[in-house]
Amino acid sequence: MTKQEKTVLNMAKFIQAQTLLLLEKLNELNLDEMANQCERLHELSEQLHDGLKKEVDRDEQETVE
Amino acid sequence: MTKQEKTVLNMAKFIQAQTLLLLEKLNELNLDEMANQCERLHELSEQLHDGLKKEVDRDEQETVE
Repeated sequence: MTKQEKTVLNMAKFIQAQTLLLLEKLNELNLDEMANQCERLHELSEQLHDGLKKEVDRDEQETVE
Repeated sequence: MTKQEKTVLNMAKFIQAQTLLLLEKLNELNLDEMANQCERLHELSEQLHDGLKKEVDRDEQETVE
């Protein structure tokens, strides 16, 4: 895994965690509509992180072969 | 503006900035599909921040009246 790949993977993981934290705070404030939007944001950030993980793992295999 | 409202507004702004940074890095790595997903994430985070800003401003007016 290159340094840049590690950086983007960590950033995606961080955004995923931040959107979850924000979701909890929005629920505490009963801002339901904003919480729904944030939930969507969290789901997308999860998909992005998972997609990046697969992308990086595929690169790793190619370098091993 | 309450302390919690300020917190969620700052978090949304921060996520917006992070998604833009990640988008730039994904473009540098030519991970086009991931960059497209991240662009969507950035747009949604912008909408969430704008929506929250309106929500908080509306609360402010109500407390002033």
